[in-house]
Amino acid sequence: MHDLIIVGAGPAGLSASIYASRYGIDHLIIGESMGGTIAWAHKVDNFPGLPGLTGGELAQKIADHAKSLGVEIKAKEVSKIEKTDGGFSLTTSDGESFETRAVIIATGTRRRELGVRGEKTFAGKGVSYCTTCDAPFFKGKIVAVVGGANAACSGVVHISDFAKQVFLLYRKSNLRAEKAWIDELKKKDNVEILYETNVSEIKGSDKVERIILDKDYNGKKELEVDGVFIEIGGVPAAALIKELRVECDEAGYVKTDEKMKTNIKGIFSAGDINSTNREFQQVVVACSEGAIASFSAYNFLKK
Amino acid sequence: MHDLIIVGAGPAGLSASIYASRYGIDHLIIGESMGGTIAWAHKVDNFPGLPGLTGGELAQKIADHAKSLGVEIKAKEVSKIEKTDGGFSLTTSDGESFETRAVIIATGTRRRELGVRGEKTFAGKGVSYCTTCDAPFFKGKIVAVVGGANAACSGVVHISDFAKQVFLLYRKSNLRAEKAWIDELKKKDNVEILYETNVSEIKGSDKVERIILDKDYNGKKELEVDGVFIEIGGVPAAALIKELRVECDEAGYVKTDEKMKTNIKGIFSAGDINSTNREFQQVVVACSEGAIASFSAYNFLKK
Repeated sequence: MHDLIIVGAGPAGLSASIYASRYGIDHLIIGESMGGTIAWAHKVDNFPGLPGLTGGELAQKIADHAKSLGVEIKAKEVSKIEKTDGGFSLTTSDGESFETRAVIIATGTRRRELGVRGEKTFAGKGVSYCTTCDAPFFKGKIVAVVGGANAACSGVVHISDFAKQVFLLYRKSNLRAEKAWIDELKKKDNVEILYETNVSEIKGSDKVERIILDKDYNGKKELEVDGVFIEIGGVPAAALIKELRVECDEAGYVKTDEKMKTNIKGIFSAGDINSTNREFQQVVVACSEGAIASFSAYNFLKK
Repeated sequence: MHDLIIVGAGPAGLSASIYASRYGIDHLIIGESMGGTIAWAHKVDNFPGLPGLTGGELAQKIADHAKSLGVEIKAKEVSKIEKTDGGFSLTTSDGESFETRAVIIATGTRRRELGVRGEKTFAGKGVSYCTTCDAPFFKGKIVAVVGGANAACSGVVHISDFAKQVFLLYRKSNLRAEKAWIDELKKKDNVEILYETNVSEIKGSDKVERIILDKDYNGKKELEVDGVFIEIGGVPAAALIKELRVECDEAGYVKTDEKMKTNIKGIFSAGDINSTNREFQQVVVACSEGAIASFSAYNFLKK
C-alpha cells in the first residue's frame, strides 16, 4: 500500500514526484513514456532557466532531478484504476496491481489523428506523428507537414534541414505558433505554406506517394510527397479514468479546481490532460500543476 | 508607447518576458529587485530540472534566459499606474514615465514584520529578514529564527553552520516546511525548537541583546540572543495597484481568473502577489503564471 501513485512520467508527473519526495510522501511513478510528449520536441526554448535544449534533454533533466530524490519509476502502462475501501487499486496492462491511498493523473495527451483515408494504411510508411523523430529519414525528399501551432512550425524548421522541399498545410489563414518559430520558418527557402488547405486523402502503393488536397495547388488537387507529418496536437489520454467517473470537459480533458483536485476524493490531476490550460500546454505549466497536485495530495494524506 | 510592461523582475516577471519575447511582443520589464524573493534563498531544490542551486543562481539563470531573448530590464520602482485612453501610464519613483497598452503585475511580496516592540529599533542591528543574506555575520553567536515554513526551516539549517546556538521559535506545534528541510534541521545539534512560542519584544542597547517570549523557557521569559531572524513570509506588494481598483482578496492578494486576467481589462497579474496560490508560493508556480499571463496579454494585444 503506497500513499501516492503518480500515473505518467512526463513533466507534470515528474514534478509532482519531486515535490512528493521533498514532502516525504511514500510514492511511485507508473508511466510508459519517460518524459512525455515534450521528449519528442527537437528544441525547447521557453522553459525558464533551461533554454536551448532538445525536448529529450529537458525531459531527462527533470527526470534525473526526480530520480535523484529516490523515486521508483515503473515503465508500465496503467490500464485500470478502481476505488477500494482504503483508496484505489491500479492495474497495469501486464497484470501487475498496486494499492494506494491517493493518485495523481498525469497521463497527458496522445497524438491527434487527421482521420483521413490512407492515414492508417501508411502509418510508418511515410505517415508520421513526430517530425523530430523521423526527419532524418526524409533526406532529399519532399514532405508535407500538417498543422499550424508550435509543434508543426518548429517541426517544419527542423525537417527543412533534411528534406528537399517542405509544404506546410494549415486549415486556417494565420499560423498560431510563437512568432519566434514563424520567423525562423520564413527564413527557409525550401518551405512553402499552403493556408486554408486540408488533406482529404493520403495515397500511394507500398508507401506514401501523394496527398489529395481540398483545394487546388498549381492547378490541381494532387500533391506529390514522400512523407506526411501530422502535427495537429493531442487528445487527452483519459480512457483510464472513465470508469472512475472523473469529471471531464466536452473534449475529454479533466476538470480540476485550482488545487488540481478532481471531483473524486483522493484523485488529483495535472498537466496536459487537464482542461484549464488545454489551449496552452507548456512544460512549465505542467510542472507547476504537478507541484500543486502534490501539495494537495500531501494535505489530503495528512488528514 | 510599448505593447506590454511587466512590473517586477522575479521569476513570474522574467518568465512572462521569456514568453513575450517568443511571441514577438514589444515589451520591457521594470523591477527594482532582480530575481525577486527567491534570490535570497540559500538553496532551492524543487525547481524541476535545476536542483541544488542557490536562490541567487536560479534567479540568475532565469534572468539570463530572459535577457538572451532581448528584453530591456529597468532597475526602477514603479510608484504609480494610471489608466489612459490608449492603455496605461506608469511612473517610477524617480519620476520617469512609460506608456503601454497592457501591464503584467508581478511585484510579488515584501517581507512580513512581526510587529513587536524593538523590531524597528533594532532592524539592521541584530534584527534581519534574510537568514541567507546575514548568516555569516553571526559566526559563533546565539540567534533566534522566527517562523515555521520553508524559509524559516531552511534558514535555520543554513545559519546553524555559522552560529553557536540557534533557537527556532514557532507559534504552532508542528513545523509546516517540506519534510526534507525538517529532517535536515533535526540533524543539527546546535538547534533547539521552541514550539507554541511567540516573541513579544526585542531588547538591547546599541544592538539586540535579548528577546522576551510569551511563555517560559528554562524558567524564564527572557532569552539572550545576538540576532533575531524574522522568516514569517510576506505580504503582497499591491500598494501600486490600489488606485486602479484591481480586485484583491481580504489579505490584499490579487484576484485573477485562470488566465491571469484581473478585473481591469489590459491588466494581468502573476506570481506571489496572486491570491490563488498564496499558500504555495513556489518558483515553478510563479513561472507558470507568468507564462500564462503573457499568453493572455498576447491574445489581448492581437485584438
